Amino acid sequence: MIVEPNGVIGILGGGQLGRMLSLAAARLGLRAHIYTPDENSPAADVAHAVTIGDYKDAEKLNRFGGAVNVVTYEFENVPAETVDILAANRVRVAPGGKALGIAQDRLIEKEFVNSLGARTAPFFAVDDLASLEEGLRKVGRPAILKTRRLGYDGKGQTTIGAGDGDLAGTWDAAIKKAWDEIGARPSILEGFIDFAMEISVIGARGLSGEIRCYDAPQNIHKGGILRRSIVPSPAPASAVRDAIAIASNMLEALDYIGVIGVEFFVEKSGGVIVNEFAPRVHNSGHWTTDACAISQFEQHIRAVAGWPLGDPRRHSDCVMDNLIGDDAARWLELSREPNTCIHLYGKRDSLPGRKMGHVTRICV
Amino acid sequence: MIVEPNGVIGILGGGQLGRMLSLAAARLGLRAHIYTPDENSPAADVAHAVTIGDYKDAEKLNRFGGAVNVVTYEFENVPAETVDILAANRVRVAPGGKALGIAQDRLIEKEFVNSLGARTAPFFAVDDLASLEEGLRKVGRPAILKTRRLGYDGKGQTTIGAGDGDLAGTWDAAIKKAWDEIGARPSILEGFIDFAMEISVIGARGLSGEIRCYDAPQNIHKGGILRRSIVPSPAPASAVRDAIAIASNMLEALDYIGVIGVEFFVEKSGGVIVNEFAPRVHNSGHWTTDACAISQFEQHIRAVAGWPLGDPRRHSDCVMDNLIGDDAARWLELSREPNTCIHLYGKRDSLPGRKMGHVTRICV
Repeated sequence: MIVEPNGVIGILGGGQLGRMLSLAAARLGLRAHIYTPDENSPAADVAHAVTIGDYKDAEKLNRFGGAVNVVTYEFENVPAETVDILAANRVRVAPGGKALGIAQDRLIEKEFVNSLGARTAPFFAVDDLASLEEGLRKVGRPAILKTRRLGYDGKGQTTIGAGDGDLAGTWDAAIKKAWDEIGARPSILEGFIDFAMEISVIGARGLSGEIRCYDAPQNIHKGGILRRSIVPSPAPASAVRDAIAIASNMLEALDYIGVIGVEFFVEKSGGVIVNEFAPRVHNSGHWTTDACAISQFEQHIRAVAGWPLGDPRRHSDCVMDNLIGDDAARWLELSREPNTCIHLYGKRDSLPGRKMGHVTRICV
Repeated sequence: MIVEPNGVIGILGGGQLGRMLSLAAARLGLRAHIYTPDENSPAADVAHAVTIGDYKDAEKLNRFGGAVNVVTYEFENVPAETVDILAANRVRVAPGGKALGIAQDRLIEKEFVNSLGARTAPFFAVDDLASLEEGLRKVGRPAILKTRRLGYDGKGQTTIGAGDGDLAGTWDAAIKKAWDEIGARPSILEGFIDFAMEISVIGARGLSGEIRCYDAPQNIHKGGILRRSIVPSPAPASAVRDAIAIASNMLEALDYIGVIGVEFFVEKSGGVIVNEFAPRVHNSGHWTTDACAISQFEQHIRAVAGWPLGDPRRHSDCVMDNLIGDDAARWLELSREPNTCIHLYGKRDSLPGRKMGHVTRICV
């Protein structure tokens, strides 16, 4: 089960996470083979091999599976069919289908978290206007309506404000507007959480069952997109401990192999509430490349390759800022700053909201 | 003159230095194009593009030059002809032909160092048996006879011991043996230095003339091959200061762009003597990847791409050990050590004396 040096790690997806996973694999003398439908993917530039193919192209997937020692993925919306095709060919896929299946559906995800005894925001399954109305009565306003599947970076969600629908005759219209905005699809209505801050746990579980978690950064989002991660966070130590314990339980329950990113709300009381998890390396763990001996990317490669996990202690405190859209045009100015590690993803077109790179400012 | 993100850095040579330069370029959103005669080169696995060609193939070099924004190299024995072909096509080559020309000839190198007022071992140019005999009288025994060109990692050199040739009638035979051993080629005879330790300076000079040097590690060689670099070194602070001043003078005098590695002997008195320099990233600077915000590889890419140089301060003390030959077979054991950064070069065959990887143990 151990992938030895010069072995090949197959990666589904060719974005910046696939790129940084490829770089980490190379450091360990492993080769990355990227599978992506995109002709120009950020990961292709640094990979040993690239297959351009659809995620449902059985023939190409079979050939890809035959050329690699293990398959992992860089995004949580890998179709179940893709994993099934690979599994039918006895290709090992890590973290595996169970975590993917749960992470792909916000309703199942919340039920899974609750089943472990961890708290989530109050939620209600919404399948039509009637259940949306019932949900609003249960979880109250303000509330967030999110599609159960295929949402990311604030996409596929809309907020129903505290006073929406209060004016005489506007209640039905307000409900219909929200329902239309998310595409009238199976959804979940989440109650608002009055939190003091957001933190996340980047944890890993290895083939032997060992679990290692990095210290939990504070995360600052704007417009649904992560902007900044601060390590260490100013959260109470007990909140960080609780979050790490919950993430560890999740890793166990999922029989997980690889790195997971779990986002939490920290209440003013210090309590922690699970927001969501991603079965992959996570944007809020990018600082580990510059502030730890073993980055989240290497940790993930170690896990899926069956190597012992690395020590997640950091050598430096740091702040990571995403470079979104035109932020990356400041590369020359940023490169003048001392102790600032610049990471650019090689994307050709800068679009508003597009993650173009990140910088980690480390405290020396 | 500035190579912007998504620009292409051409690299002559596809060994582990080219590999680590490619990885550093990728981090900055730059693309690496490797030019190498080897079908299976460690750098090819992580490069944007690879040209397999002879260093004297003008047609291939011209096409390569047309596909990149600047050319650099990972080894000091690049033929002058290669640089000439590229220069004739107005391709910018950094660090440039002057440094290459001097570094490729041990005699010219020593004369250059002396011309800057820095000390070297006593030396004598050897072109035949007569000049070897004269040299031995001048520099004394023991002495080391080295070919002027194309030596590395202890190759192309032989030692004449303190008592060699002392037995009646053995003097001529001892001289002839040494001369034959290095292939009866233009050589240089160097006197022995009674040194306390070896250190090196990894320095960089940018397009604007700015100079940045990393702290000088202590280096431990065995059999002519670097085994270990220790940072900080136990050398007196004044010796480190003197070594950095000499390296900086060399960078200025060579009108150098990029990273240079300068090796020094530190005498028991604290004096420093230049051993040799390499016009490229250097094995004794590999620790910078794990212990500094900006590695020597990124520093070199920044310099040749015309970016501002990075801050060379380290965040951690560390020890770097080369993995030579079968040392690399210990990868699984090494991966269990905390705070040990493993780097494997993806070479397929392990040979005695071959550099297969390195580890940096950092102090957290």
